Amino acid sequence: MKHLYDCILGEKRTEVILATDVASITSHIETTIRSVLWVCDTNTVKFLATDSQKTVVLPSGEEAKSWQSIENIVAAAVKLRLARDGFIVAFGGGVVCDTAAFAASIYMRGCQLILIPTTLLSQVDASLGGKTAIDVFTIKNLVGTFYPAKHVFVCPTIVKSLPEKEFKNGLGETLKHALLAQDQSLMEFFENQQRAIMRRDAMVLERMVIDSLQVKRFYIEADPREEIGIRSALNLGHTFAHALESAGNLNEWAHGEAVAWGVAKALESGLKLKITDHVFAERALRLFESYGFNIGYRVRHIERFMLALEGDKKRKSGAVRFVMLSNQGKIRLETLEDQIIKSVISRT
Amino acid sequence: MKHLYDCILGEKRTEVILATDVASITSHIETTIRSVLWVCDTNTVKFLATDSQKTVVLPSGEEAKSWQSIENIVAAAVKLRLARDGFIVAFGGGVVCDTAAFAASIYMRGCQLILIPTTLLSQVDASLGGKTAIDVFTIKNLVGTFYPAKHVFVCPTIVKSLPEKEFKNGLGETLKHALLAQDQSLMEFFENQQRAIMRRDAMVLERMVIDSLQVKRFYIEADPREEIGIRSALNLGHTFAHALESAGNLNEWAHGEAVAWGVAKALESGLKLKITDHVFAERALRLFESYGFNIGYRVRHIERFMLALEGDKKRKSGAVRFVMLSNQGKIRLETLEDQIIKSVISRT
Repeated sequence: MKHLYDCILGEKRTEVILATDVASITSHIETTIRSVLWVCDTNTVKFLATDSQKTVVLPSGEEAKSWQSIENIVAAAVKLRLARDGFIVAFGGGVVCDTAAFAASIYMRGCQLILIPTTLLSQVDASLGGKTAIDVFTIKNLVGTFYPAKHVFVCPTIVKSLPEKEFKNGLGETLKHALLAQDQSLMEFFENQQRAIMRRDAMVLERMVIDSLQVKRFYIEADPREEIGIRSALNLGHTFAHALESAGNLNEWAHGEAVAWGVAKALESGLKLKITDHVFAERALRLFESYGFNIGYRVRHIERFMLALEGDKKRKSGAVRFVMLSNQGKIRLETLEDQIIKSVISRT
Repeated sequence: MKHLYDCILGEKRTEVILATDVASITSHIETTIRSVLWVCDTNTVKFLATDSQKTVVLPSGEEAKSWQSIENIVAAAVKLRLARDGFIVAFGGGVVCDTAAFAASIYMRGCQLILIPTTLLSQVDASLGGKTAIDVFTIKNLVGTFYPAKHVFVCPTIVKSLPEKEFKNGLGETLKHALLAQDQSLMEFFENQQRAIMRRDAMVLERMVIDSLQVKRFYIEADPREEIGIRSALNLGHTFAHALESAGNLNEWAHGEAVAWGVAKALESGLKLKITDHVFAERALRLFESYGFNIGYRVRHIERFMLALEGDKKRKSGAVRFVMLSNQGKIRLETLEDQIIKSVISRT
């Protein structure tokens, strides 16, 4: 195991640790920490050789992000007599990490928290940055906190065994990070190492995860609580993606695929508005295509899509500001006219 | 209305504002803030002339500190389309403040929060310091956050209309603050102004509330998250008080009365151990007595009391450390032998 760096989020810091295999992480935690409550889901429980008294197993999927899960975790913590200096350890994907982290942030006004993300998406996204949440009244992430983990264990080799759809899910976000990076090295890496990445070679996976996390780190350290418009760069592609998902395609698209499509639409909007550098945009669009993302997908029910966007706007008490890129790593927040949006989503 | 000071709690700050009457606070908020959700209880709702669409009325009493209340507040916030820059305003005693503040801290990962404490106890205690909480599985404050309010409006004249028991409730905590102050001026004030305080004269109430809050401010600014043992000074008397309350006297004693008794027991323990200055202890004990607190109360069921203390110990994964005073404003954390505890609670 190797200490990579401390990510500084305001007053809090998260130690990021690189691990070569899961077994070494769990045994390290079991031997060094006295008081631990494990939180996993029905998919990841089989990789945990922990005492069932000390383990909460959540259902798999988004429905686990519920108050019921929080109650179950808190009940188990009380039963274990977990104190404020005790640890809740999340072992799973984004849903498990978000839910366990929210529980840790409110149990006794905050106990200790470790995240072990087990998907590519959660390794490069949910693990770092302190956003915790559950869904309430079917509204995604309506309730949550900012509560950075004390330690995050990143184990890129886990990615080898992910189903194809889950791998692509994470790939969409890592490619997004390549565009947001302050230099072109991650972009070049994706261009040059495509075959090794698709084969999921251990060495390239490690570099992909570490470098992608560094991009996230750059934005969240500059703006930990998303207050000054820098952290929102990470939402690149997400406004388009959420509208696509809400407009009835929620189960058809993996989230990472919707994000890849959304990033493409943000680039195309930028081209139309002459905000985005032409060479950069073409190169980025080619990259997504070369990894098999369907960025040319045309929305058929345009009005339904526009309504979904409208819903976003209402919740945010004002105009929706899209994250746009003028060039590699250079963001701008812009409102977009309906005409531009309609034209890029239907490619007229 | 008068800006008193900003209380700095780590990265957060709370503006403390002195107001002469409640009506001016509510109209100030209604005219200056666009997006507001009011939270009150069945006791305080009559003082609020607000739109029922914009008001959540909690039941009165401790049972309101529940997840059900949080759901009700969040549901009302969603209905109002409250955004992260919108305000939740608590109008009530400690229960309303703790609950509304917890809801504000988790709604959209934290929206804006204003507290208008309407009891003496909540004005000098719950309003400042950022502790929010609800009770879960009948365990008091099991779930909560640290989330300092943006503004706290303090209106000492409210204290004039409190029932006697509620007034005494707050008085116990304010006397405790007098002992914790860094100089003797608040203690002298209580000694010299007793008749005016018991008559609840407006001028003395204002000074009592403001000076008592300053004492709390001193301890919480030095240790916002109760991490280095300074903030725990504010728990003076509370370990004894909680045990008294859990040992079957929960409804017999107002919390402030139990705290006053507990402070006396801490002083008496300090005398027995020769930790506490004799002159200071005698003076402090006389002060509590002169305000009519039953500090000489003898616990009859000693074993039940010791079991209640034991329960506290188990939850805190280690020995219970009592807050002791060596002299005015000088605290020490000490474990106490059973023999000492038994002797002070039964006065043998």
